[in-house]
Amino acid sequence: MSSTAGKVIKCKAAVAWEAGKPLVIEEVEVAPPKKMEVRIKILFTSLCHTDLYFWEAKGQTPLFPRIFGHEAGGIVESVGEGVTDLKPGDHVLPVFTGECKECRHCKSEESNMCDLLRINTDRGVMLNDGHSRFSINGKPIYNFVGCSTFSEYTVVHVGCVAKINPEAPLDKVCILSCGISTGLGATLNVAKPPKGSSVAVFGLGAVGLAAAEGARIAGASRIIGVDLNSNRFNDAKKFGCTEFVNPKDHNKPVQEVIAEMTDGGVDRSIECTGSIQAMISAFECVHDGWGVAVLVGVPNKDDSFKTHPINLLNERTLKGTFFGNYKPRTDLPSVVEKYMNKEIELEKFITHEVPFAEINKAFEYMLKGDSLRCIIRME
Amino acid sequence: MSSTAGKVIKCKAAVAWEAGKPLVIEEVEVAPPKKMEVRIKILFTSLCHTDLYFWEAKGQTPLFPRIFGHEAGGIVESVGEGVTDLKPGDHVLPVFTGECKECRHCKSEESNMCDLLRINTDRGVMLNDGHSRFSINGKPIYNFVGCSTFSEYTVVHVGCVAKINPEAPLDKVCILSCGISTGLGATLNVAKPPKGSSVAVFGLGAVGLAAAEGARIAGASRIIGVDLNSNRFNDAKKFGCTEFVNPKDHNKPVQEVIAEMTDGGVDRSIECTGSIQAMISAFECVHDGWGVAVLVGVPNKDDSFKTHPINLLNERTLKGTFFGNYKPRTDLPSVVEKYMNKEIELEKFITHEVPFAEINKAFEYMLKGDSLRCIIRME
Repeated sequence: MSSTAGKVIKCKAAVAWEAGKPLVIEEVEVAPPKKMEVRIKILFTSLCHTDLYFWEAKGQTPLFPRIFGHEAGGIVESVGEGVTDLKPGDHVLPVFTGECKECRHCKSEESNMCDLLRINTDRGVMLNDGHSRFSINGKPIYNFVGCSTFSEYTVVHVGCVAKINPEAPLDKVCILSCGISTGLGATLNVAKPPKGSSVAVFGLGAVGLAAAEGARIAGASRIIGVDLNSNRFNDAKKFGCTEFVNPKDHNKPVQEVIAEMTDGGVDRSIECTGSIQAMISAFECVHDGWGVAVLVGVPNKDDSFKTHPINLLNERTLKGTFFGNYKPRTDLPSVVEKYMNKEIELEKFITHEVPFAEINKAFEYMLKGDSLRCIIRME
Repeated sequence: MSSTAGKVIKCKAAVAWEAGKPLVIEEVEVAPPKKMEVRIKILFTSLCHTDLYFWEAKGQTPLFPRIFGHEAGGIVESVGEGVTDLKPGDHVLPVFTGECKECRHCKSEESNMCDLLRINTDRGVMLNDGHSRFSINGKPIYNFVGCSTFSEYTVVHVGCVAKINPEAPLDKVCILSCGISTGLGATLNVAKPPKGSSVAVFGLGAVGLAAAEGARIAGASRIIGVDLNSNRFNDAKKFGCTEFVNPKDHNKPVQEVIAEMTDGGVDRSIECTGSIQAMISAFECVHDGWGVAVLVGVPNKDDSFKTHPINLLNERTLKGTFFGNYKPRTDLPSVVEKYMNKEIELEKFITHEVPFAEINKAFEYMLKGDSLRCIIRME
């Protein structure tokens, strides 16, 4: 048992007091973990677009003050009642969605959308008792997707914690907590491109590049990167992209451009932007007879996916995925192993690194569009 | 060699002279098969909705005079140049779509949408030379999807002819030429319901009932039949349906009714009506995490499939199928064997039988909606 077990821990956290305003490093109190909860010492965290969206709170429900952050690596400090799978000292990745191992989804081989612990961006409190474990002078600070990793210590439901190989470098594998696994799994678990096939990836941010990396690992022979920003094309080559299309360069729909490049369409496509037009293009650019399009990007609330049904009847498949269909506890440890075995390259996703005190720089890099992943060092 | 090989055959055919007008039994000349063609003596044929639609020609391109019919069983009379797979005397099923065995689709394990011989409802002539093999006093009569089985003899491209077990009764297995295989394959080859799963079938005509039969064979434990005509529910029990929903009986969308019946949605759904609203409902009624919806019914030209993309992102799959994903020459013989082995029951689809002279009665039965399949005996 650590000397802090069962006690409130005072530590530093980056608090978002208002939408869009720089985070402020504050001293917060972190309550001990309750039943089925784990308190984790965060060593490295990184910034994901989802943090940014909810911090900006433009189309999202504003919930402040709040501690953001959900991609991270850390070490278990203490565990609450009923936790048997984890113990202090275990190396872990907290995850924004969970795996209770009891519900129909967890028992299904196909689903990772746990009924109990599925992502809830609007909750801001623990499932157990409806309270946050963070406070400043007794006033509660909301959590974010049950993770709040922009804090030296955080409390997470045990179902949202993946125990990983203690030899894995946390400053690298922390990015497998969310975006990179999402893109990688979309390709490897859902699109499943056969060796030698052609794959189009829409959106060359971190998730899209991870999808391309998945296609590279799967042995795709043509990986076509699609992005409205041509500046991204050069770097995308490192992730396996062999060709590029900027829809702005063409006066016809990008799905037609891709169909012409590929004798009727690609074998697989993966949509990683969330733009409804990109989703439709990603679907319509796959080959009839066998093409599979996978949607990853999160759409706006009032979007409508529209296509002529004959595009489906001509034997195309359209599917969506959530967190790359990985079950957090069951599957993430093996993704970490893929990195350890050098099957997956993570270093190339890490473009920046800052100390915790400079966390707002990570937001600036992402807003400028010149970072993939910025690692934030807690110590 | 038969004595008629290489010669024009004069025989009876049911000619549609005008849209929607009763067919007229005429004496027609059937030219010998040309390169890669087969002349078949039709013994039994049956009427499918597709014949009816193009005969009515309400939303379809009118092409008259024409000989309809494309579900049939017969015996090869003679073969044209280059035909090595078939010989006179072989028992065969002509099929409205083909398998050249050379194109990317035929070489793909997943597709049956042959580039060369894919269905073309507007062609009306042979691929080889752009002419029909049917004429009356030298004036050509258009064919229908390269089959024209409402004739005692017909000429079909070898790629559209499935050679089957000569012991199979042609008056039963002829219905595997089109609709029944379409529904059956949609379930067995595409939806693939696991044993014990729940399946919704939209539309309880012959294709939908064949889809239900597929679900029964696959071991689904709940098969929910959906139709606007409740009169169909009783007979549908013979095809495995265990429950029924008539959307007219509810004041909320049928997808919500089904979700309530099944704790969140069915595992699989199969849409066999062609109504765009039914397609959307069939997709939205499958369970998140693992649900698969398969579209079979042919939509109108200006229909648009619309859904909120979150329905996809929640790990639902939407796919379409054509002829149940069966490759006509490679796969149909084994479907016939399934009937011979008593795995599939075909008798229950056959509700009527008429001699060729009374072929118009088959149209009347279908228009009244009180037939599934009407067998037309040529002799």
